[in-house]
Amino acid sequence: MAVAGPEIERLIQLLARLPGLGPRSARRAALHLIKKREALMVPLASALQVAIERIQVCKTCGNIDTQSPCTVCTDPRRDPAMIVVVADVADLWALERAKASNGRYHVLGGTLSPLDGVGPQDLTIDALVQRAHAPEVQEIILALNATVDGQTTAHYITDLLQEANVKVTRLAHGVPVGGELDYLDEGTLSAAMRQRTLF
Amino acid sequence: MAVAGPEIERLIQLLARLPGLGPRSARRAALHLIKKREALMVPLASALQVAIERIQVCKTCGNIDTQSPCTVCTDPRRDPAMIVVVADVADLWALERAKASNGRYHVLGGTLSPLDGVGPQDLTIDALVQRAHAPEVQEIILALNATVDGQTTAHYITDLLQEANVKVTRLAHGVPVGGELDYLDEGTLSAAMRQRTLF
Repeated sequence: MAVAGPEIERLIQLLARLPGLGPRSARRAALHLIKKREALMVPLASALQVAIERIQVCKTCGNIDTQSPCTVCTDPRRDPAMIVVVADVADLWALERAKASNGRYHVLGGTLSPLDGVGPQDLTIDALVQRAHAPEVQEIILALNATVDGQTTAHYITDLLQEANVKVTRLAHGVPVGGELDYLDEGTLSAAMRQRTLF
Repeated sequence: MAVAGPEIERLIQLLARLPGLGPRSARRAALHLIKKREALMVPLASALQVAIERIQVCKTCGNIDTQSPCTVCTDPRRDPAMIVVVADVADLWALERAKASNGRYHVLGGTLSPLDGVGPQDLTIDALVQRAHAPEVQEIILALNATVDGQTTAHYITDLLQEANVKVTRLAHGVPVGGELDYLDEGTLSAAMRQRTLF
């Protein structure tokens, strides 16, 4: 027996598919939405509708925006000489929040992962190589996760970019800002030591 | 600088107001929705629209349904002699999932809480007293949380129902099914001992 009517059950099921919400918290979220009908449910429904109608993937870099090419790709203040390669739009957002780069981006759509059946053809690597051959591009910054899959992808891309006339760089390894040495793993510590900088 | 466009930021802000989602997980949820546009975002938007249009609060018991009086109140197989009093619709759903009762319900809309400024006039206590005076009603079951606020509310309602010709009962205290004695507090253990039953 479904406790609530089919309309509410359907809403709960869909909410439960969001990352971070399980069946129980989806139930709580649905009740919260129903209670805050005018203040939350109506605005959320219309925000989703707007997103459905207007959000698209940038054909150049893979970013998500209401225009294609996206705001970053068309921004004249952005340095066209640098392309920051990220696995996912979430990584692009993280770098933008940190104001870490003034370059443009390229979203791969994931990392190479033979175990999960993700090969080069599943990512936008071909498009990246093509962009790297453009005359204005001088540096490709591989901002990929420091995981096995991320580093495998970085090596794979570096090999492909041998022929392009670009400098290929990657993010530095080291001690996170605010981090305590005592809690860091040996790999990070020795990388931080090797890549030490002048004070 | 907003990282994503205003449409996406608005979606993230609204998602962050759901219980269980913080700013960071709302960001992840928004990205997930945008990626699963046809499979999740479109159905969720339409489920919300359906909920906005069709869900209402039952005028009799306070339950949430697409009809008022709700399915529970109009179900002829439900025993009209019993009214189960709960603080919130979530509690009603929990009891229904457990198939704990065949009676009807009454949702108070909260519990008395002087510290939070919740008084009797903020709850549907008057309506409950009125329902309790109906000739067919024989038992009022107070299924309220075993917290200070819940028990205060239970006492308050019990006093008001002195004049009505009904039996007022409350949920048993005791060892949760599957629970270990070692982990239980003294209050629960002594209540379970006092209210022991024949094996």
